[in-house]
Amino acid sequence: MSRIQAAPDEAQGNLTDRLLAELPAEAVLTDPDVTAAYANDMASFCEAGTPAVVVLPRTVEQVQHVMRVATELRVPVVPQGARTGLSGAANASEGCIVLSLVRMDRILEINPVDRIAVVEPGVINATLSRAVNEHGLYYPPDPSSWEMCTIGGNIGTASGGLCCVKYGVTAEYVLGLDVVLADGRLMSTGRRTAKGVAGYDLTRLFVGSEGSLGIVVRAVLALKPQPPQQLVLAAEFGSAAAACDAVCRIMAGGHVPSLLELMDRTTVKAVNDLANMGLPETTEALLLCAFDTHDPAADLAAVGALCETAGATQVVPADDAAESELLLQARRLCLVALEAVKGTTMIDDVCVPRSRLGELLEGVERIAEKYRLTIGVCAHAGDGNTHPTVCFDAQDADESRRARESFDEIMALGLELGGTITGEHGVGILKKEWLARELGPVGVEMQRAVKAAFDPLGLLNPGKLF
Amino acid sequence: MSRIQAAPDEAQGNLTDRLLAELPAEAVLTDPDVTAAYANDMASFCEAGTPAVVVLPRTVEQVQHVMRVATELRVPVVPQGARTGLSGAANASEGCIVLSLVRMDRILEINPVDRIAVVEPGVINATLSRAVNEHGLYYPPDPSSWEMCTIGGNIGTASGGLCCVKYGVTAEYVLGLDVVLADGRLMSTGRRTAKGVAGYDLTRLFVGSEGSLGIVVRAVLALKPQPPQQLVLAAEFGSAAAACDAVCRIMAGGHVPSLLELMDRTTVKAVNDLANMGLPETTEALLLCAFDTHDPAADLAAVGALCETAGATQVVPADDAAESELLLQARRLCLVALEAVKGTTMIDDVCVPRSRLGELLEGVERIAEKYRLTIGVCAHAGDGNTHPTVCFDAQDADESRRARESFDEIMALGLELGGTITGEHGVGILKKEWLARELGPVGVEMQRAVKAAFDPLGLLNPGKLF
Repeated sequence: MSRIQAAPDEAQGNLTDRLLAELPAEAVLTDPDVTAAYANDMASFCEAGTPAVVVLPRTVEQVQHVMRVATELRVPVVPQGARTGLSGAANASEGCIVLSLVRMDRILEINPVDRIAVVEPGVINATLSRAVNEHGLYYPPDPSSWEMCTIGGNIGTASGGLCCVKYGVTAEYVLGLDVVLADGRLMSTGRRTAKGVAGYDLTRLFVGSEGSLGIVVRAVLALKPQPPQQLVLAAEFGSAAAACDAVCRIMAGGHVPSLLELMDRTTVKAVNDLANMGLPETTEALLLCAFDTHDPAADLAAVGALCETAGATQVVPADDAAESELLLQARRLCLVALEAVKGTTMIDDVCVPRSRLGELLEGVERIAEKYRLTIGVCAHAGDGNTHPTVCFDAQDADESRRARESFDEIMALGLELGGTITGEHGVGILKKEWLARELGPVGVEMQRAVKAAFDPLGLLNPGKLF
Repeated sequence: MSRIQAAPDEAQGNLTDRLLAELPAEAVLTDPDVTAAYANDMASFCEAGTPAVVVLPRTVEQVQHVMRVATELRVPVVPQGARTGLSGAANASEGCIVLSLVRMDRILEINPVDRIAVVEPGVINATLSRAVNEHGLYYPPDPSSWEMCTIGGNIGTASGGLCCVKYGVTAEYVLGLDVVLADGRLMSTGRRTAKGVAGYDLTRLFVGSEGSLGIVVRAVLALKPQPPQQLVLAAEFGSAAAACDAVCRIMAGGHVPSLLELMDRTTVKAVNDLANMGLPETTEALLLCAFDTHDPAADLAAVGALCETAGATQVVPADDAAESELLLQARRLCLVALEAVKGTTMIDDVCVPRSRLGELLEGVERIAEKYRLTIGVCAHAGDGNTHPTVCFDAQDADESRRARESFDEIMALGLELGGTITGEHGVGILKKEWLARELGPVGVEMQRAVKAAFDPLGLLNPGKLF
C-alpha cells in the first residue's frame, strides 16, 4: 500500500552512503539477516515488507539527517520503538528506512516540584516508572508490555493499561514534544508548564499518530504523586451479564477504583492452565477491583457490597499487597495464556460505553459460537475497553479465515454499540478499513488533509492508519 | 488583518437574503444598533470590525446553511459564545457574519453510568455544572465567568479555572465533537467511550482552536463523581517569594489540593476596597489552599505546617463550608476589584513551571516599578498560571501606552522562564505576535498548514491566533 516504490540495488547503495555521511557505521544496519528482525511488530495477519536499511540514531541531529536523506531520495521511513505493538503500525514497508529510536534512551530530567520528566523516546516504560518512583512520583500509563515497550512507542499509539480507569491513557501525560518533521526540520510543541493554550494542540495530534506525522525525539511528561499501594478485590459471578451490571453499579455509585478488570471463564481457565494460579474455574466472570486510596479496605467493602447486589457468588478482598499482586499477575498473564490455547491469537481492542459492556460480551459469545472458535475476553471493564482474543491455529487455513472474520465482526458490534474499534492498541495496518468505517468519509478526508499538511510526500510510515 | 474584504451594500443584501432562505427572520439580525453589541468580547486593546449580520441558529442544519452561504459568498464567519473571552478571539472582523451559538443551549443527555454529558455549545457552564450535580456528578472546568460563559466558548479557548490544579482544563473533559466545517459539511470527532485512539485526535485539535477550524455544534463531555465539599485554608506571607516557596513545598510534598491560589498585596487591598471582605492587608501575599478529600482538615493541617516552614506569618484553616466559600468569593472578585482601581485592566495569563513562580512575581514587581503602574497579581499558583493585571486609565494615552508595554514585558519574562504566554485565556488578537514568538517559525508554519487543511479559504475567524 506504500505510495513509494522500493529502491533498486543502486539506489540502495546510494541510500546507505548518504545515511553514513552523518551516522556512525554501527548505527546503520544493512545485513538482511539482521534487518529482517525489524520487519514487524507483534500483530498477526499484517503484511510486512523488507527494510532497505535499519538506522539506530543516538541524537536528534542524526534523526534530522535521516529524515533529510529520506526526503531527498524519496524513501519511506518507518519509526519503531520496541515493536511490541499489536496492530502492525511498526511493520516495515518494502524498501523503507526503519528508524529505530531504541538507542535514544536517556531520562534527561525528573523534576518533583514541576512534576515532570523529560525523556528521549527509547526509554523503556518500566525504567521511567521506577526512576520516578524514587522521587515519590508516579508515571501511570502501564501497558501490559511495560517491561519492554518504549515511551516513544507509547506516545505513537497513545497506549493505555490497567491504570486508565482512574488515571487515563498516555495522551493525558504528554505535555510537550520535540518532533523531527518529514523534511528534517525540528519543531517543538506544547510546554513544560501545567497549563498552556498557545495555538493548536499539536502535541495531542502527534500522540496516537503512529509515526505518520513526524518523529518524536523528546517528550515532556506529566507525573503524579505516588499513590498508596493499591488493594485488590476479586468477585466471582455466575454470568458475564451480572459482572457487567456490577461494573455499572460501581461507576454509577461514584467510586473511583484504580483498576476494574474483567476476565471471562475462558480466560480464567487459560491462565490456570498456563500458570496454575488456582483461580476459581467455576466462575463465569471474574472481576478485579482495586483502590489506591488512603483506606482501600473501606472502599473495597463498599464495592464488594455492590458486587453482591449485582449477584456475585463470591467476593474476596485481598488481605495485603502480596495477595493483591498475585491477582494482578493473573490479570497480566491473560493474553499470553490465551495465546497458549491454540498457538496464535488476534486481539480485538473494542471500547464501548461501559453501559453497553454486557451487550458486547453477550455478542462476543454469540460470535464465538457462530465461528466455532475459542474467544477469551479480558477487559479494562471500568473503561468499557475489551480485548476479545480470538484463539486459532495459524496452520489451519479455514480456522484462520474464521478467526479474521470473527475479529472483524466483533469490531462491527463495537461500532453498533456506540463504541470504537480501538481503545488503546491503535489502527496500524490491522484495522485500516475499520478506521474508515468508524470515521466516515468526511472524517477520513480531514485526517488525510492533516497527514498531507505534515508529510506532503507521504514518506512517514506510509500505508498505516488509512 | 482579515484576508476577506468587507461586503459592499449590494453584496450585504444578497448575503442576508441567502441566509434567510433557511433561517427564520428572528435568527438573522442586521440592525446596526443591535449587531454592534456583538462586535467584541471582554478584551481591551483589540480591534473589532462591524459585522454585516449576526445569525443565531438553533439547529445543526442551520449552522450548516450559514457556512454554506459563507463559503459560497466568501464571507468570513466569527463564531461567538457569551463573549466573555479576554483575548479578542470573538471580536467581529469587518463585514463578517457573527455566528452566535447561544441559542443552541440544550443539554441533550446526562449519563451517570458512562459519566458523560452531551450538550449543545450554547449551554452556560454553570447550568451544566448544576444539572450534573443533581446526578451526583461533577463537571470541573470553572472559569471565573462560569455563570455567563458557554461550553462552546470554553471549548474554543480550552478554558481553565480554579479547579485545574487537581482537575485540569476543559480539554481534559472533551471526548467527542460534532463540528460543522468551513464548507458546511458535518464531521464527528472522538467518541463517547472512556478511551479511544481511532486516528488522529482531531477532538483535541478543535479544543482551543478559537473557532478557526470549524463550528462546534455538539460536544460529548466527560464527568467526574462529585467530590466532597472542599475546605479552604488561608495563609499569610511576608513576601511573595515565601508564598511561592510554600507552593513548591506543597506540590513537591505530593499533596493534591483541589485549589491553590495566590493573591498579592495589591490584589488583597483591591478586593477589600471593593467588597469590604476584611482580608488581612498587612500580608504581602495570601495563599488559599483547599482539599476536597475525605478528610480535608487533616490535609490542610499538613499543608499549613509546610506554609509555616516556608515562613507563613499566619495560617488560618476555615472552620466550615461557609467560611471556605467566603474565601473563594474573595478570590473570585480579584479581577473585578482590580478593574475598579483605575477603570481599565489588561490581564496577562502567563503560565510558568511552578518552580519559577517566585521569579515571575519578582519580575512583575520590577516591571510595575519601571512603568510606574499598579499591577496586581492573582494566580492559580499550583499550576504556575498567573494573571498579572495591569491597572490603568484608558483616557490617559501615556498610561495606556505604558500599560501595553508592561503587559508585553510580562509575557517576555514568562517565555524567558520557560513558560507560555497563555495558560487558559487564549491568543485571539491580543497575543498574536507573542504566539509567533512562543512557537517559532517552524511551529507557526505547521499551525498555518493545519488551519489551511480545515479552512482553505480562510473564512473561519480570520485574523485570530496568527
